[in-house]
Order: sequence, then structure tokens, then C-alpha cells
Amino acid sequence: MPKPVILQRQTVARSRLFRAEELQLEFSNGERRTYEKLCSGGPGAVLMVPMLDDSTVLMAREYAGGLEDYHLSLPKGAIDAGESPEQAANRELKEEVGYGAKSIQLLKQVHLSPSYMEHKINILLMRDLYPEVLPGDEPEPIEVVPCKLDDLFQLVMRDDVIEGRTIAALYLAQHWMTQHSS
Amino acid sequence: MPKPVILQRQTVARSRLFRAEELQLEFSNGERRTYEKLCSGGPGAVLMVPMLDDSTVLMAREYAGGLEDYHLSLPKGAIDAGESPEQAANRELKEEVGYGAKSIQLLKQVHLSPSYMEHKINILLMRDLYPEVLPGDEPEPIEVVPCKLDDLFQLVMRDDVIEGRTIAALYLAQHWMTQHSS
Repeated sequence: MPKPVILQRQTVARSRLFRAEELQLEFSNGERRTYEKLCSGGPGAVLMVPMLDDSTVLMAREYAGGLEDYHLSLPKGAIDAGESPEQAANRELKEEVGYGAKSIQLLKQVHLSPSYMEHKINILLMRDLYPEVLPGDEPEPIEVVPCKLDDLFQLVMRDDVIEGRTIAALYLAQHWMTQHSS
Repeated sequence: MPKPVILQRQTVARSRLFRAEELQLEFSNGERRTYEKLCSGGPGAVLMVPMLDDSTVLMAREYAGGLEDYHLSLPKGAIDAGESPEQAANRELKEEVGYGAKSIQLLKQVHLSPSYMEHKINILLMRDLYPEVLPGDEPEPIEVVPCKLDDLFQLVMRDDVIEGRTIAALYLAQHWMTQHSS
């Protein structure tokens, strides 16, 4: 299907963190619609699946502003200018979890809600961990929680595991490791 | 950990679709931070995993404004006022895919990016499908693509499957069906 033509594009709202654009679209059948989307600035983000051993993943209990509560998710962070996803993931892991990784595998880049957001995040499997701490900018220390992948369904169905991309990343990592184990 | 106290809250940006709030937070250790979050209006959203048979899921190829391109994902939509997630899922399935479901199972509610978004979506497994079409408001017909769950890793690693919550939902549905098959 040929893509709709973007007849017009303008910024309709802006805050310190967010910028929203309005798109005037004409679909290939002549239908016109006005869509809004949230633009992402910067080079993107990384989400890490840090494996302490073959069956133990390190998760983080952290306060989430959108939720106004704590929840359990995989550690993540923004890519700084000039960093590769792998470099950003290793730096963020040292800042948030206190480990570096000797083996880093980019599994997939996923989008949050492509219908109205540009934002995407790189999912990286981090293995062969070694202790190394870098100072971060968190308001309070992140509680690191080792979790077993043996019963993944039980883990992802926990009431405090509520992030879609964390669930996707845990399954992708487990699936990838199954396919690549000798 | 006691939740941070919200000292102040104000709307800092607004468009037709989006509203951003700024939160002044004081964490339990005394650290203060300014967070921004995107607020969600309305009763939420549904994402459907429609199973044509035990191993075939119906996916949708649709234009996404945030991506400015087509991609393959599970069908989804907004819950209307007064609707339950199950009712919304069945209506949206009829509008977008041309089927109703006799069996509807709420699997989990997931958040997109809890650190800076309120938005959440209910994942529902839809089975025992029957043909029924309701008129929708799509600018063009959605292309429905039957996909096999037999090789789920191959499916989720496709270049045009890029939505995190779709990947999470496919794994959750497959896992749930495995646990509940007799």
C-alpha cells in the first residue's frame, strides 16, 4: 500500500520533555485525516536484560512518574550523543545495577506505541557480568532484584511487573538463549 | 520504600490528544526532582490476540502516525465510556478484523512506559471467532494477515513487527494457552 502523503506538519504542544506534532494526511484512497504524534528527541534508549547466570535476570524496583508508584522492570536509560546502543547499555548497567557486561547482544529495536509515538528502545541481552559501579543521577538507589527465568509466566504475571516492553524483552531474551544454547 | 511525596503538580503542555504534567517530587531520602509525565484521558485501551485456530493469530497491517509507515501488529483500540475491556475488544475486533469472539480472556494490563506515561492497555485473548463486521472509522481498510504461532521467534523478529506490546501479547497468549490446554 503506498504511504499516505503528509500534506502538512506542525508542532502543536511542547514542554521540557515532550513535543507533539500534528500531521495532515491524505491516504492513497483520497481519505484525509489529522493525526497527532509525540516526537522523540535524541538518539533513543536502551533496555537491558542482565543475566547474572543462565537462569537469573537482574531486575530493578524503581519509582515511575507515570505510574506514581514503584514497579519491577528491566533497567533502562537514554543513549547519550555519540554512544552506540551497546555502549549506552553497558554504562547504564554500571550506573543502575552495579555491573558491566563482557557479552552484549542487541536483540531487537521495539517501538512503544507506533500509532502516536516516535519513541523506540533497543533491547540488549547482557551476559558475562562483572561488578563495576558508575555514579548515576538517580534520586535514590535502585533496588536490584534477582529473578528466576525458570518460571517466566509466573514472573511476568506478577502484579508489580506491568511494563509491556519488559515482558517482551524477557521473552525475547529467553527465546534467543534457547535458540543459541549449544 | 515509601513513595515520594508530590509537592506540586501542574499541566505544562496540552494538544488535542496529549496532556503533559510536571510533578515536583520529594523522595523519602529528601532528594527533590522535577518529573514530567504524559497523562491519559479516558478509560484506557484494548489489544486483542484473535486466534483463528489454535495456531493462527490474525494480525493487522496498518499505517502508524508515529512511525510514518505501515507495520504489522495486533489489532487494538480505545475503550468507549461505559464499556468493559471485553466489550471494547469484541467491538474493535468486529470493526477492524471482521470477527467477533465467543471466548474472551483478559490476560494482563500492561503500561507502555510507566516512567513518563500513564497510558495502559488491556491484553485480551479472543477465541471461538465468528464472522461479523461492524463499520469502523479507519481511513482505509485494515489488511488482516493470518500468522502462525508455531515459530513465534521468527514472527516477532520480522522487520515489520516492531511494537513492544504486540510482542509481549503474543508471548503471553501462547504461554497462557500452553498452560491451559488439556
